[in-house]
Amino acid sequence: MTKRPLSLGKVYGLLEPGPVLLLSTRHKGRDNVMTMSWHTMMDFEPPLVGCVVSGRDFSFAALKATRECVLNIPAAGLAAQVVACGNSSGRRVDKFAAFGLTAAPAKLVGAPLVAECWANLECRVADTRLMNRYNFFVLQVVKAWIDPAVKDPRTLHHRGRGVFMVAGESISLPSRAK
Amino acid sequence: MTKRPLSLGKVYGLLEPGPVLLLSTRHKGRDNVMTMSWHTMMDFEPPLVGCVVSGRDFSFAALKATRECVLNIPAAGLAAQVVACGNSSGRRVDKFAAFGLTAAPAKLVGAPLVAECWANLECRVADTRLMNRYNFFVLQVVKAWIDPAVKDPRTLHHRGRGVFMVAGESISLPSRAK
Repeated sequence: MTKRPLSLGKVYGLLEPGPVLLLSTRHKGRDNVMTMSWHTMMDFEPPLVGCVVSGRDFSFAALKATRECVLNIPAAGLAAQVVACGNSSGRRVDKFAAFGLTAAPAKLVGAPLVAECWANLECRVADTRLMNRYNFFVLQVVKAWIDPAVKDPRTLHHRGRGVFMVAGESISLPSRAK
Repeated sequence: MTKRPLSLGKVYGLLEPGPVLLLSTRHKGRDNVMTMSWHTMMDFEPPLVGCVVSGRDFSFAALKATRECVLNIPAAGLAAQVVACGNSSGRRVDKFAAFGLTAAPAKLVGAPLVAECWANLECRVADTRLMNRYNFFVLQVVKAWIDPAVKDPRTLHHRGRGVFMVAGESISLPSRAK
């Protein structure tokens, strides 16, 4: 797929609905990717994203050390890989190789894009004040990519214990919200 | 609808998929309710929820002063009320009366439940260290209620500018995640 840059002011529309993400890192020459559902927008522009990365996750040390990552948004066609990434640890598995994912170079950060995802958000860590207590990182999105062919992405939304809701129909309402 | 208590360890399954919420407060004798999409789980049990409530929102002062609120989860049948709550301010409107919502007493907090929502989470503010900088509150869910008749809730997920994705089908995958 060919992606185009997305203006940073539109990033919130990708993350507000709560999709499962793949968080990718590069640390000490190793690419890794983890599955993550605990994230929220925190500001519109520059876009800030808060997320929890457990101290037990291999990605925690990479994120803490490099202060860079990519948030990749998979659609339902990647459900098997999303679950496989969640079931395994980068300590033991090269998940890109094992699950047929492609690490593509990012523009502004060292962490790789997951090429198969329809959107990719290059991020730098902006605040770690809640990191020690809650494993909570505030990320700033510094570059965003989107596949312009994807209009109604069938994002995945975890309801717990392996049950995922797949994004359904879209409705338009007279909201004055951003 | 008749609700039953939900064990606190199951709360994450309600919020992980990123539904639009109605956040209700009671302050100086006034009930209020606002529409909110910027939230994330932060811990399983006791359940912690991080959320952004803008300093411009009337609810900010109520949440800061009372340190209590209820997170109510609406389904698609309430879409018109969800948007109406987002388009108006509690400074000028009694939203419960104006939009036909019912304020029901909570068990452990002073803020009211929105009775029409299929799930209600009574919360106390647990951490305000990021409140001044990001309008970010860490809430602890102290009591959870759910309508046992709702199996596949048609939750609303904001994609920006009044476009809401309505929860679609559920799929079950062999995840080892909680």
